[in-house]
Amino acid sequence: MWAELLPVGRSAASGGYRRFAWNSADAECRAWFEQQARGRGLAYELDRNGNQWAWLGDPTAGGAVVTGSHLDSVPDGGAFDGPLGVVSSFAALDELRSRGAEFTRPLAIVNFGDEEGARFGVACIGSRLTAGVLSPEQAYGLRDADGVRLPDAMEKAGYDPTAIGADEDRLARIGAFVELHVEQGRCLAEGQPVGVAGAIWPHGRWRFDFHGEANHAGTTRIEDRRDPMLTYANTVLAARKKAKQAGARATFGKVAVEPNGTNAIASLVRGWLDSRAADERTLTALVEAIERAAAERGERDGVRVELTRESYTPVVDFDGPLRDRLAKLLDAPVLPTGAGHDAGILASAIPTAMLFVRNPTGVSHSPAEHAEQADCLAGVAALADVLEDLACH
Amino acid sequence: MWAELLPVGRSAASGGYRRFAWNSADAECRAWFEQQARGRGLAYELDRNGNQWAWLGDPTAGGAVVTGSHLDSVPDGGAFDGPLGVVSSFAALDELRSRGAEFTRPLAIVNFGDEEGARFGVACIGSRLTAGVLSPEQAYGLRDADGVRLPDAMEKAGYDPTAIGADEDRLARIGAFVELHVEQGRCLAEGQPVGVAGAIWPHGRWRFDFHGEANHAGTTRIEDRRDPMLTYANTVLAARKKAKQAGARATFGKVAVEPNGTNAIASLVRGWLDSRAADERTLTALVEAIERAAAERGERDGVRVELTRESYTPVVDFDGPLRDRLAKLLDAPVLPTGAGHDAGILASAIPTAMLFVRNPTGVSHSPAEHAEQADCLAGVAALADVLEDLACH
Repeated sequence: MWAELLPVGRSAASGGYRRFAWNSADAECRAWFEQQARGRGLAYELDRNGNQWAWLGDPTAGGAVVTGSHLDSVPDGGAFDGPLGVVSSFAALDELRSRGAEFTRPLAIVNFGDEEGARFGVACIGSRLTAGVLSPEQAYGLRDADGVRLPDAMEKAGYDPTAIGADEDRLARIGAFVELHVEQGRCLAEGQPVGVAGAIWPHGRWRFDFHGEANHAGTTRIEDRRDPMLTYANTVLAARKKAKQAGARATFGKVAVEPNGTNAIASLVRGWLDSRAADERTLTALVEAIERAAAERGERDGVRVELTRESYTPVVDFDGPLRDRLAKLLDAPVLPTGAGHDAGILASAIPTAMLFVRNPTGVSHSPAEHAEQADCLAGVAALADVLEDLACH
Repeated sequence: MWAELLPVGRSAASGGYRRFAWNSADAECRAWFEQQARGRGLAYELDRNGNQWAWLGDPTAGGAVVTGSHLDSVPDGGAFDGPLGVVSSFAALDELRSRGAEFTRPLAIVNFGDEEGARFGVACIGSRLTAGVLSPEQAYGLRDADGVRLPDAMEKAGYDPTAIGADEDRLARIGAFVELHVEQGRCLAEGQPVGVAGAIWPHGRWRFDFHGEANHAGTTRIEDRRDPMLTYANTVLAARKKAKQAGARATFGKVAVEPNGTNAIASLVRGWLDSRAADERTLTALVEAIERAAAERGERDGVRVELTRESYTPVVDFDGPLRDRLAKLLDAPVLPTGAGHDAGILASAIPTAMLFVRNPTGVSHSPAEHAEQADCLAGVAALADVLEDLACH
C-alpha cells in the first residue's frame, strides 16, 4: 500500500514531493484513495468540498468515528507528512478486521483536500470550507502563482466548484475525529514511538509588500535608490531576532520579486512571514514588532510597507476528555505542536484528537523527513487500539 | 515609426516591456526592423548570431560606418533603452537623405540580439558572440529560468543555432560603430540634450548560492535551523554598505528560492549580485568584501555559500580620437557610464563611440524611463551629423 503511493508526485531532482491541490500528482493520490476504499468494500464518497471519505457502516447513523489525514504536500515535501496518517488509517482498519473487531458505531477514513496550502496560500482549505471557517466567496478569490483561480483549478480537475461550502450535516454525524501524523519536531525523539497532541500553537501567515522604485542597477547612485530588497532583508533579520527573544517562531521562506532582473533594482519585493508562538498574546506582539521594524527601515529606504494577514488560526486545545482517554489507553505522553492540521480546524466543531509518530531528526517539509518502519507500525497499532476503543464498545 | 514599435511586448499590468531574446515580442520587433530596412531600400541581412543588419552601399567594400542598438528589454523595462538607438538610426538616415547627403562609405544599421541578458543571464550575447568573447560552447550551456537551452530557444524562433560564433570578417569591414542610447543617469539632466561617452565602468554579475536545510517553519526550533534566507538577507545589507563606502554600485535585484513555500524553511536561496565601480581594483575589492561577509554570516547560520561569476566586463575606454572628434563636432560633454552596452563589447575590436540622449529623471530599466521628444529629435540630428561626418567625406 505504502509502496504504491511512494513514487506519485516525487521530483527526481530533489527527491521531494510536489503534490499540490488539483494537480496531476494530487489526482493520482486521489485515485489511489478511492481504490483502497473500494478494495476494502468501503463506501466511497466525495463531499462537496472535494474531501474523500471511505465508510464502514451507515454514514447517517450518527456518532461516527473518523480517522485520516491528507495526501497533498508542500513543495519538495517529505513522504510522511499527511500520507502516513491516511495509510495508517487503512492499515489500522485491516488490523481491526484481523482482530475480529465488531463495530458498534460507523467508521470513516478521510483524505482532506489541500491541507498544505502550497498552491493557493491558505492551509487546510478542505477542512476550513467544511467547518465554515473559510467561505466559498473567500475561496473563489484565491489564485495560485500562475494566476489560476481556485474554482478554475477545481473545475479543470473534474470537480464542481459551485458546490463548495460549510457542511454542517456531515460534521453532525461525527462523534470523534482522530488524526495520526508524523511528528514535526523532536519531543518523541528520545522517548516513546507514539504521543498524543495537547494543543496546537496559534499561527498565521502574513504577506509583506515592500514597494520601491525600479531602476538601473548600474547607473543609479546608491543615494538615489528606493530599493525594497534592503527593507526586505532587514525585516528577515529583525523577524529572526525578535522570534528568538520571544521563544517563538518567525520564518520568511517564500519571496516574489518584480521585475526580478539581475541588472534592475526591484520595484516590489513580496515576502511571506509564517509565525507561531505558544500563546496568542506572544504571537500578536511578535508580528507587531516585526511590522514596526519593517516600517522603520522602510522609512530610511524610501520604501512603502504594506502588511496583509493571509490566514490566522487561534490556539487549538484538543478535546480534554478524548485526549486524556487516548493518553491513558496508550500510556503515551502529551505533546504541544507548532504545526497546523485539519484536526486543528475541526477541533472547534467536533471532539478531535491527534496521535504523533516519532521523527528521529525532527526534520519535516523536506525530502529528508523520516520515520522508522518499526515506529510507523507502532503508530498503526496505537491507532487500531484507539479506533477499537472508540468504535467497538 | 516609434508609434508602431511602442505597443510590442508591453505588459498591460506594469506598463513595462517584456521583450526577451527569442520570445514572441522579440520576433515582432525583428519583423519591424526588417520592414523598416526593406521600406528604405536597404539590403536586409541576418548574421550568423541572429543580429539584424540593414545596408546602404556595398557591405564588402570595407570601412563601413555602422550605427544601431538593440530592441530587447529587461523585465518590465522602459520604451527607450535600446529602441531609441535603432529608431534614431533609421530617422538619421532619413534626415541625411533629405539633406541630399552623398555617402562615400557603406552605411549599416544594426539590431544586436539579446543585449539585456534578461532570459539567459548573460548580457550582450549577440555582440559577444560576434566579437568572439563568448564561445558557441559557452552559449550552448546557457538555460533560461524554465530550463530551456539557448540553442533550443533560437531554433524554436526559426534561427540556426549551429551557425553561431565569432564573425571576424564582418568586424573587419567596419570602420566605426556609433551607438545612440538614452542616458541611464542624470549627468545631462541640467545641461545639454546630447553627450558623448568617455568610458564604461567595469561590471559583472555574480551568483551567490546559499545552501541551508529545508524544514518545517512551525515546528523547527530557532536554534535547530540552517536557514539560508538569513545569510542572504545579511549579504544584501552588507553589499549595500560596502558599495556605499567604496563609491561603487552593488545590487541584489534577482532572487530564486527553493522550495519557496510559506511554511517551509528554504533549502536554497540564490541571489544575483550586479556590481560596478569606476575601476577594476575597486570592483574586485568590493566583491571580495561582500563574499567575505556572506561566508562569515554563513558560518553562523550553518549555511554553505557558493559564488559563481556569471559574467564580467573590464573597463571600456572608447576610442580616443573618435570620441574627441564627436565631442568637438557636436560641442557635447563627455560622460562616464555604469551601464554595459554592445558598443562596449565591440570597442575591443573596432573604433567605437556612443551618444547619450538626456533622461530628465535618470530612471532606467523601469516603465518610468523617459526622454522628452525635443531631446530625442536633438539626438537624431546629432547622430545624422556624426554619420555625415564619418560616412560622407
